[in-house]
This record gives sequence, C-alpha cells and structure tokens, in this order.
Amino acid sequence: MSEISTLGEFGLIKRLTEGIVLKNKSTVYGVGDDCAVLDYSDRQVLVTTDMLMEGVHFDRTYTPLQHLGYKSAMVNFSDIYAMGGTPRQITVSIAIDKRFSVEDMDLFYSGLRIACEEYGVDIVGGDTTSSLTGFAISITCIGDVERGKAIYRNGAKDTDIICVSGNLGAAYMGLQLLKREQMVFEQQWQEMQKLQGEQRETMRRELENYQPDMAGREYIIERQLRPEARRDIIQELRERGIHPTAMMDISDGLSSELLHICDQSHCGCRVFEERIPIDYQTAVMAEELNMNVTTCALNGGEDYELLFTIPITDHEKIANMKDVKMIGHITRPEVGRVLVTRDAQEFDLKAQGWNPLKEE
Amino acid sequence: MSEISTLGEFGLIKRLTEGIVLKNKSTVYGVGDDCAVLDYSDRQVLVTTDMLMEGVHFDRTYTPLQHLGYKSAMVNFSDIYAMGGTPRQITVSIAIDKRFSVEDMDLFYSGLRIACEEYGVDIVGGDTTSSLTGFAISITCIGDVERGKAIYRNGAKDTDIICVSGNLGAAYMGLQLLKREQMVFEQQWQEMQKLQGEQRETMRRELENYQPDMAGREYIIERQLRPEARRDIIQELRERGIHPTAMMDISDGLSSELLHICDQSHCGCRVFEERIPIDYQTAVMAEELNMNVTTCALNGGEDYELLFTIPITDHEKIANMKDVKMIGHITRPEVGRVLVTRDAQEFDLKAQGWNPLKEE
Repeated sequence: MSEISTLGEFGLIKRLTEGIVLKNKSTVYGVGDDCAVLDYSDRQVLVTTDMLMEGVHFDRTYTPLQHLGYKSAMVNFSDIYAMGGTPRQITVSIAIDKRFSVEDMDLFYSGLRIACEEYGVDIVGGDTTSSLTGFAISITCIGDVERGKAIYRNGAKDTDIICVSGNLGAAYMGLQLLKREQMVFEQQWQEMQKLQGEQRETMRRELENYQPDMAGREYIIERQLRPEARRDIIQELRERGIHPTAMMDISDGLSSELLHICDQSHCGCRVFEERIPIDYQTAVMAEELNMNVTTCALNGGEDYELLFTIPITDHEKIANMKDVKMIGHITRPEVGRVLVTRDAQEFDLKAQGWNPLKEE
Repeated sequence: MSEISTLGEFGLIKRLTEGIVLKNKSTVYGVGDDCAVLDYSDRQVLVTTDMLMEGVHFDRTYTPLQHLGYKSAMVNFSDIYAMGGTPRQITVSIAIDKRFSVEDMDLFYSGLRIACEEYGVDIVGGDTTSSLTGFAISITCIGDVERGKAIYRNGAKDTDIICVSGNLGAAYMGLQLLKREQMVFEQQWQEMQKLQGEQRETMRRELENYQPDMAGREYIIERQLRPEARRDIIQELRERGIHPTAMMDISDGLSSELLHICDQSHCGCRVFEERIPIDYQTAVMAEELNMNVTTCALNGGEDYELLFTIPITDHEKIANMKDVKMIGHITRPEVGRVLVTRDAQEFDLKAQGWNPLKEE
C-alpha cells in the first residue's frame, strides 16, 4: 500500500485523472486549469450536486470503494435524467484522511470512471484534499436538455397518472441485510476474542475468510451498492412521445418525493398500495426482518427510480411500457395526499424518508 | 440556540434559501428541483469547485462563520475570474455535525449571500446533510465567458511579461498571527485553571472578554479571513484591451502557480525578488515572527491575487495600471524557472506551497 503523501495533491490528481478521454462535444476543456470550459450553444444547462459523508451515507466496512465511486457518480446522473436531460460532465471533490492509500483512491476512481464510461460522461475537474476524519465526497454533475424541455416537479395536474419505474424498497432492504451481516460478524469477532490459544487462532482464521451468505439476495445488495440511473426510461419516454408533466428521482423514498410533487404542483394524489412495484427478494427480506414491505417501499431511500406524472390522454402510450407501473393519480389539492391500502383503507401520506438531519 | 434537528433537512434548506432573488439572465431555475436550469446561449460555460474541511482549511476557534461563508464563495469566484470569465451561479453543499445550531448556519449563509450579492452571483442549488465530525463545505461555481476567450494556463510565450495583482503573503501572515493569538489564549486559559477561588474567577472573567490585540494588523487578518476575488483587475484588463496569454489565481503560493504556468506553457521564467509586491503589514509581521518575507510571498497560500502573462508589446498598456506589478518574464524552457534575488543570486523556483496531502 502506498501512502498518499508519497504523491502529494498534484501527483494524486495526475494519477487519478490520467488518460481521461473527453467524449462530449460540449466539453471544451477538462481537468487541469482553474475551471473546466463547456459549450452548450443552443441547449440549456442542468446542474446538480450531491455530498456523501462516511459514516452517514456509507459505511466502509461493507461498501467496496469501487462501488462507492460508481454510486457517487450514479446518484448525480439520476438527478439529471430526472429533469429529462442527459448528463455530460462531472466534477469530483474528495477529502480523505490518513487511513486511505493511493490504491484505495485508484479503486474509488475506477468505479467513477466505469460509471462515466457507461453513461458517456466526462470528468472535467474537482478538488482533492485531506480531512481529519472520514471520507467526504462531493460531486457536481452538469447536463443538458433541449431549450424549454426540462421537466420540473411543479407541472403535475389533476387527473394526471402517477408512474414509477422499476421497483421500490430494494436498496433499503439491501442496506438492512448488509447491516445485519456486519453485526453478526462483529459479534463473532467478539466471541473469538474471549477464546484462548489454538481455539482462538482457528476461529480468527475462519473469521478472516468469512464470506457472508448473500445467495439469493444478490439483487437487493446490488440495488444498495451499485444502483443504476434510469437513462433507459428517459429514452423510451422520448421514443414513445410521452412528455411527463412532472418528474423526479426517488432518493428519499416514494412518500417524500410524492409530497414534493404535490407541494410544488399544488395538487393532491391518490396512490394504491397494491400497485406499488416490489421485487420478490425485497418482499422475502422484509418478511424475514419482520418489517412491513409497503412501509419500506414508501420510506426506504436510494432506489433512484423515476417518479413521474403524465396526462391521462397518454394512458395508452404508457400501458404496455416495460418496467413502468401506474400507481395512482393526481387530484385536486383538497382531496389530500392519500394512500389507499389493499383493504381499501385510506391514510395520509407522510414523509418519513431518510433524513440525516433529523434526530433518530 | 436552536438545534438543527428541529427543522430537519428540508426545513433548514428552506430557511437558508428563503428570499433568494435570481439576478442572472442565465439562471432559468434555481433551488428546489433535482437540478438547476441554466441558459448560456452563445457564451461558454466555466465550472470550478472547491472543498473546505474543518481542521484542514479552517479552524472554527478563530474563523467567524459569516467570514467563512464569504470566503467559501470568494475562492470559487476567484477561479472563474482567473479564466477571464464572470461568475454567475453557485451550488452549496454542506455537511454539519451536532455542534452546529440553526443560527450558526444562518451566519454561514449570510456570509455566502453577501458575497453573492456583491458579485452578482445566484445560489441555485446544493446539498445539506450531516457529518459525524466537523464541518465540510463544497461549493461549485458556474460562470461564463465569450466563446473562445477563456484564458488558460498554457498560453505563455517566451518574452511575455509576468504580472501579479495586489500583494502577496498577507493572507499567510494573517493566518500566522491568528494562530499565535489562539495559542496565547489557550496558554492563559491553562494558567487560569491552575488557580483557585477568587483569583481563578477573576482571571476567567478577564479571559472570557479577551480581545486579541490586532491593532495595526487589520489588513493581514482581513486578507486571511475575508479575501476578495479580483473582479476589478479583470474588468480593467478588458477596458485597456489587454489579453493575457496565460492566467491563474494564486491560491497555493506564487512559486507553485508559476510552475503550473511554465509546465503547461512549456516555458521557463525569470522572476525578480525585488519586484514581488509585499504589503507593509506583511513585512512587519514576518520580521516579528523571524520569517523570511519573500519565502512567505512565494509559498504562503490563499492570496487569491491574479498571476498572468502578457505579450511584451502590451508593456505600455500595463505600465501605469494601478495594483498590478510586473515581476519578471517568460523564457525559453532551457533557461529554467529562476528566482533572481536582491543580491543577484539565482535560485530554482520550488513549489513548497501549502499542500494538505503532503506530510508536514
């Protein structure tokens, strides 16, 4: 392992950004000056930014650094798609403490670069510095959209159909599984430390090679560690000539996001529990942990699926679209924001989504 | 004092961004959706980003939060000016721990907003989250420049004149002074804790009202805590029809920045010690601390002055420009990167600038 101090700031930046090939016509100049230079001529520019803090947004004990790099980029791409745009560039700021080696940073950056490669995005700048405690990541993504065609949260209208892509709650259940396995491991490690002599040594060796049993759970783990932004949905909506009236990505949970759309569009909504798409593994895991799977789908975050509303006249166009579910409809504001359960009870939607600034 | 948890993430964002009035034609949509939407039509877009970490880039014991907000914005504006551009928008990401109150955040944001007000910049987005320890700030600034007119670091040519704005080393000396006063205070506080009874109480009261004596040092303190980006210099260069061949801002120290320009422009340079502009207070403070003032000017960071090169044919145009000094000239690469001292000795310039990723 090589200490970061052997390279210094500029050496590390050079190593991490070496061989970056700029792919977008809009990228005039990338890493290496005071600013990146971009040229969007007749298109509008989208800007979004996300900050990920160690211990708050990720736990290094179960987050491989390459996945973390991939995810850090992806959550930003997702915001650009959620406006109906295309991500084009990112800037990457990281602060690291002395526990991190050059090879750690290589891994993190390789994840970033794979994400950028797959989604056609250029890394054009950033900042690389040190922190006293923990790893801090701040990524800004710039994208473009045809002039006047950005899809905001404020355009939903009474009678619009509410749609979501993919399925919900999987990333949250993946996180619960990772946390549980981590806890089991730590308990066993503590047990081992109570032992003596050869017994202890044997158990230590076993634990060092410990592989948590994730068989049959790969999907929910992947949803947590390596989410994908829904570029495919945006492309297909475009091809089908569907113009959502409002759209956002689901990062804090369906309830919270629905309330944002209702607030900004000054409307109400009715959502049907039985329509909320849930994957089989998500349901099994919720059962195993004795959690209500609908609650997980409504309030578990980090799905990075798209939530959007379309005019009821587009019903036919969306009906047979793969991986999109109609889960309810927009109403006049006085109807409220309502969840209709399987047994036809009605509840007010509440934003209990993941909120790092609220006391647990 | 109000705990952040009383507001939660969205409440805090609402409070901090309330009443923001967008000023720039290029800002189509600001805070409140997945992305900001910008429109630059026929101009090119500049993007820069900076990360500031508590304990690494600032120390809360002597950094008022309002100044910190101001400075966080300013260091980004400075990068945009250093390309010959105009800053237009910023996104503001912050991570805070439980020590921070709502009022602390109000102060930080008020500093940001004053900076944006003065420089005509819109706050268009960001991220507000929690950290386990310490305050992390990541700001991205977006600006514009006439198509093809961005000034890079790579255009300096043999015989070009090297210029700097303002004076150098002041921010670094201001930091030394702040650190010294902090140390004196801490020593006295420890002394106090050794005392007993009334004596102790008297000294404690004295210390609580302790105001470090900064008389006659206001300038260097201000250079450290509340730097200004050199918009005025960019404007005047434009008015005088001077087109720098290379330009950057001085954030890591003159030596380090000169070497960047020489590297990227494939040239050498000769810089004259006697020409390096140094303020009187900087010199006095260096004397008092028994430091070489030229070393401070060469290697002390955070001046946020502009370093630029101009064709020798523009000599007349720059000669009487207020607050700009010609400090040397660009040479062919084989001449090296040389500092000529007052007594005509020649030294190779070395980048010993502030480097948070190098071991002290």
